[in-house]
Amino acid sequence: MQHCDTLILADWCVPVEPHDLVLTEHAVVVNDGRITEILPAADARDRYEPSTLIERPGHVLIPGLVNAHTHAAMTLFRGLADDMPLERWLREGIWPVETRWVSAEMVRDGTRLAIAEMLRSGCTCFSDQYFYPGIVAESAVEMQMRAMVGTPIIEFTTPWAENAADCMRKGAEEVHDRYANHALISSCFAPHSTGTVSDESFHELRVLADQLDSPVQIHLHETAQEIADAIKETGKRPFDRLREHGLVNSSLLAVHAVHLTADEISQFADAGVSVAHCPRSNLKLASGIAEVATLQKAGINVALGTDGAASNNVLDMLGEMRTAALLAKARANDASALPAADALRMATLNGAIALGLADSIGSIEPGKWADLTCIDLRHINSQPVYDPVSQVVYTADANQVSDVWVAGRHQVEDGNLTRIDENELLQRASEWRSRLHNGKETKTT
Amino acid sequence: MQHCDTLILADWCVPVEPHDLVLTEHAVVVNDGRITEILPAADARDRYEPSTLIERPGHVLIPGLVNAHTHAAMTLFRGLADDMPLERWLREGIWPVETRWVSAEMVRDGTRLAIAEMLRSGCTCFSDQYFYPGIVAESAVEMQMRAMVGTPIIEFTTPWAENAADCMRKGAEEVHDRYANHALISSCFAPHSTGTVSDESFHELRVLADQLDSPVQIHLHETAQEIADAIKETGKRPFDRLREHGLVNSSLLAVHAVHLTADEISQFADAGVSVAHCPRSNLKLASGIAEVATLQKAGINVALGTDGAASNNVLDMLGEMRTAALLAKARANDASALPAADALRMATLNGAIALGLADSIGSIEPGKWADLTCIDLRHINSQPVYDPVSQVVYTADANQVSDVWVAGRHQVEDGNLTRIDENELLQRASEWRSRLHNGKETKTT
Repeated sequence: MQHCDTLILADWCVPVEPHDLVLTEHAVVVNDGRITEILPAADARDRYEPSTLIERPGHVLIPGLVNAHTHAAMTLFRGLADDMPLERWLREGIWPVETRWVSAEMVRDGTRLAIAEMLRSGCTCFSDQYFYPGIVAESAVEMQMRAMVGTPIIEFTTPWAENAADCMRKGAEEVHDRYANHALISSCFAPHSTGTVSDESFHELRVLADQLDSPVQIHLHETAQEIADAIKETGKRPFDRLREHGLVNSSLLAVHAVHLTADEISQFADAGVSVAHCPRSNLKLASGIAEVATLQKAGINVALGTDGAASNNVLDMLGEMRTAALLAKARANDASALPAADALRMATLNGAIALGLADSIGSIEPGKWADLTCIDLRHINSQPVYDPVSQVVYTADANQVSDVWVAGRHQVEDGNLTRIDENELLQRASEWRSRLHNGKETKTT
Repeated sequence: MQHCDTLILADWCVPVEPHDLVLTEHAVVVNDGRITEILPAADARDRYEPSTLIERPGHVLIPGLVNAHTHAAMTLFRGLADDMPLERWLREGIWPVETRWVSAEMVRDGTRLAIAEMLRSGCTCFSDQYFYPGIVAESAVEMQMRAMVGTPIIEFTTPWAENAADCMRKGAEEVHDRYANHALISSCFAPHSTGTVSDESFHELRVLADQLDSPVQIHLHETAQEIADAIKETGKRPFDRLREHGLVNSSLLAVHAVHLTADEISQFADAGVSVAHCPRSNLKLASGIAEVATLQKAGINVALGTDGAASNNVLDMLGEMRTAALLAKARANDASALPAADALRMATLNGAIALGLADSIGSIEPGKWADLTCIDLRHINSQPVYDPVSQVVYTADANQVSDVWVAGRHQVEDGNLTRIDENELLQRASEWRSRLHNGKETKTT
């Protein structure tokens, strides 16, 4: 018998790579935080003596979900400004509240709440962009969550930084430098949008990103209004400005990408740009519906993101995946568009590719980190099971997530967070509600 | 002190009528299955001595959700045929399986599974159309669920009936006659679509529906293909055929109604037709996206349905409501379309109106049946709470449904079904899976 740290047995295992494979009655072996072997359950029982044995009949094991775009701390603004289009939502709903309330403390509490929500719903890695990115990274490490921490870049003064140059300076120091080669944290720069970043700053960003070999992500072509405004102000589409600054390359993650011309799609494909598709946010802000099937057909890697809780309003990658799978069909006028297995791939391996982490996460393969999610299909709404992948994508709710591991650490067990005090998070959320609510009342009277 | 059967106290109560009202710290008084009073919690504690006291801090009480369109028994076909357009899905995926497997036993087991799923997700009334409608009604009564039982009408021979005339004869006897004036069951006729029902049968239906004063519901203008086929075969759009048969009136519930001309919309409004919007099914089958905002602006009552589990794939009205609210915004290119309070109304009172039951269900008002749903907002994904209606529509999952009452009977308590043996249902579902799966294997080898 051979020792191993953890042995996980589930009725089904969907490794995502190879594509469309469903393993029945298999086991995953975990050692030192990494997947070391996948083998038939019977063989695993014969061969391994695990420190921890996890048996999950009626469950399906999938790679941990990768949330390719969010603003974690904004959970504290969840439901504060609904039913408004993007520009009004930003200018009237969000920016004034951020100016008044964003602080290191707020970012810490909001990010912690977000990480708890993401873990509970099967997500093991998130790509973030928000003020105080150093605090975001710190919170993720503290909670042992995997994160791509984006340094937000915006021209105007915020509670965190003076201007775009200050953002870049602080981000490089607080995130890129501090977390270089960290097992859980990777870093990128996240200019807010072409409308809020100057040519000078884009130039500076290009130099800095090259220097630090850093990926870049940006909200791009999210709404028709954004493009119209850009043309009015600069004579150029946002895409063209990025291209001119040399930022349209394989290090770019274009967030939203709802409105693209055929030519832009083909340039994206040629350059190896990834897209972060955020279907629920795009619907809620009436931004439009991205042409996912077209993008994929062109060869573009499309990942999936929840966006922030202020425009979604949940950080639930299972729900996001289902919405993406459903919506792609109507958008393409083709019921076979984005079938279940492709949707699951979008929410896992495509996310890993988009974040430059495909070598280490995104699928259940020996050598990768043991970032794993186990889903209980014995719930009424997932029965009977003809095809476990269909049940995961089209029927499973967050509360069916039984177990989650990040780098082999058991973060969710039997649906409960193992390392996080949920009551403390709820208490802090409630305190923030009181503060913001009172602040609001003071303003309106 | 005054006696009452049940006194329910929740932090928030959203009666739906009057519109946009949120009551804080209120109580609902229930006697003999009906709501008798709504009053401040403090007053209720002073005045009432309840047989059962229900206290739900951090919860919101809403009217029970009304599922305006489903095929309950099809839960047993959940995930059997994904990622296909409507016509292929029907002809290759569903009809062959139905021909082989539909039986009184299958309808009973499937309907019971569906009712359990609907109750668990806060739904207290469903409008069904499926074979063996007598069994559907029987199962609903047995489980004490409210249902509008539709008699399916289709020309071709099914395991249940010879032809359309036989459907009508059987339905009138097994449902309309047997459940006349029943507290939980109401009846209607449900011709499948204009493509599968002859002019002669529509004529007969019109006479019978008048005689029995029965509502009619039909899949109408679900896909562009359906309309194109109708024009090819009959020279007429389905809407026109229905109109010529005198069926476009206030007793009609048009299911789907994805593709309507401006003139058809205005005729629907004039005639007082209701629409059952089934957004997830319409997306999944790539049927299109109904113009909900336009229909409502025209004055049409739009209700919400899940459709069957074979094309959704869940009977979760909370999720359906969220999808409807999100989708309407993108469809109308207006982020203020179908705001949260309107979406909740669509999933409750509009459903009651569509089923002709607005006098007795659909809102929390004295005199109506105590069909109530309580939702726990103390979950991480619903925190903090600035607006409980926003949290219900944009954040709440089925597992947050803590309590459900149908006609005052406590059907779900602390998230668990009180009268239904879930394990037995799961066992039956698993047996059906084995049968269908084996049948499938036999066919392909």
